[in-house]
Amino acid sequence: MSAQGSKVLSTAPLSNEDARWISLVKTQYTDPQGVHRDWESAERRTRPKGSLIDGVGIVAILQKPGEPPSILLQKQFRPPVAKIAIEVPAGLVDAGETAEQAAIRELKEETGYVGELVGSEFGISPIMFNDPGFCNTNLNMVHVNVDLTRPENQNPQTELEDNEFIECFTVPLTDLYVELKKLDAEGYAIDARIGTLAEGIEIAKRWKL
Amino acid sequence: MSAQGSKVLSTAPLSNEDARWISLVKTQYTDPQGVHRDWESAERRTRPKGSLIDGVGIVAILQKPGEPPSILLQKQFRPPVAKIAIEVPAGLVDAGETAEQAAIRELKEETGYVGELVGSEFGISPIMFNDPGFCNTNLNMVHVNVDLTRPENQNPQTELEDNEFIECFTVPLTDLYVELKKLDAEGYAIDARIGTLAEGIEIAKRWKL
Repeated sequence: MSAQGSKVLSTAPLSNEDARWISLVKTQYTDPQGVHRDWESAERRTRPKGSLIDGVGIVAILQKPGEPPSILLQKQFRPPVAKIAIEVPAGLVDAGETAEQAAIRELKEETGYVGELVGSEFGISPIMFNDPGFCNTNLNMVHVNVDLTRPENQNPQTELEDNEFIECFTVPLTDLYVELKKLDAEGYAIDARIGTLAEGIEIAKRWKL
Repeated sequence: MSAQGSKVLSTAPLSNEDARWISLVKTQYTDPQGVHRDWESAERRTRPKGSLIDGVGIVAILQKPGEPPSILLQKQFRPPVAKIAIEVPAGLVDAGETAEQAAIRELKEETGYVGELVGSEFGISPIMFNDPGFCNTNLNMVHVNVDLTRPENQNPQTELEDNEFIECFTVPLTDLYVELKKLDAEGYAIDARIGTLAEGIEIAKRWKL
C-alpha cells in the first residue's frame, strides 16, 4: 500500500473539551528551591489505565545469509507534520498486553513479518520519553530479529486497518545515517527515534566503540 | 545546581484558549484513497515565525588525552513526566539564530563548556520529529566537540535562568546504554533522543558495523 497521495486540507485550533485522543494539562509543581510554578503539557488520552507506556517501537533487524543486516522501516503520512514520516514500526499497547506482545503483534499486522524477541538485556529498552519538556508520550523500544529464511517470512502479508496506509522498506544498518539524510532531502520527515539511533551507529563507527 | 527536590502539586485540564506555550490542533486531510479524515495533534506556540524547527539538541563529546570520549548529559525535573529526565543539552532557537549558533550558545549557558562544531556532513542532523503521530515538535541535533585541554574549559561556569535547575554529568560513550538502564532503574526518565542514540551505539557494537 502506498503512503503517497495524502494532503492537508485545513488546520484549526481544537478545544480541549472537543478533543477525543489527546489533551492539554497544566501542572503545578515546586522547583528545587520550593517556589511554586506552572507548566503546560500535552498527553494522549489512550494510555490504558494502570499502564506506564503509550506504545512500543520495534527495531526489527532482517537477517539472511550472505546479506548485511537490515532494519525494517515505514513510510506513513503523519498529519501533525503534514509529511510522510520515516519511522520504525510502532503501535499502541492494548489493555492487558505486555510491550513484547504488542511488538510481535504490531510487527505482524503492519509488516507481515514474524519476529523473534532479542532475548537478552538488550531485548527491551527502558521507558523512553519522546519530548519530556512538552508531553508525557513514551514508549518501550522492543528489539526483534526477523529470520528471512523462515517459511512464514517468505511472503509477508500485512493486516492493516482501513485508515492505515503504511509502506515498508529496508535499509542496511551500516547505511542508515546516509540513507536518512537522503530521505530528508527528498522531503520525508525523519522520526527522531530512528534518526538518533542512526546517529548512535555513526558515533560508534567514528569513535570505534 | 541540584535537580533534586521538585514535586508535582496538582495537574488539571488546561483549555486551549488559556494555554500560552502550547496548543491543540485539528487537521483535516485526505488519505491516499481521497477519503477526508481528521487528526488531533499538539504544537508549541514558541516556534519563531518562518523557522522550521523548535529547538536544538546537542551531542557534546568531551575529549581529554588518555580518557575515553564521554558524552555530556543533564538531569532536569520535567513536570510533564513528573520525574527528573536524562537528556542531552538542548534549547529553543531564538529568532534570527541558526541551529549551530543556538547549540553553541545553549551549551555555554547550560553547561559552561565552549564547544566546537563537528565540521563534516555529520555536524548537524536532519530535522527530526519527536513524535510525528502526536505533535509537530522537532529539533536539529548538533554535534559538538569539547576539548577539555582548552583554558576556557578548565572551570566551566553556567549562566542559568532563575527557573532552570540543571545538573550536568558525563558518561563514557561506550557505557551509555548500560548507564541509562541504571538511571532508569533509579527512577529517572530517559529522554528518547538519548535513549535511542545509546541503542544505536549498542547495535553498532553487536553487529560490528
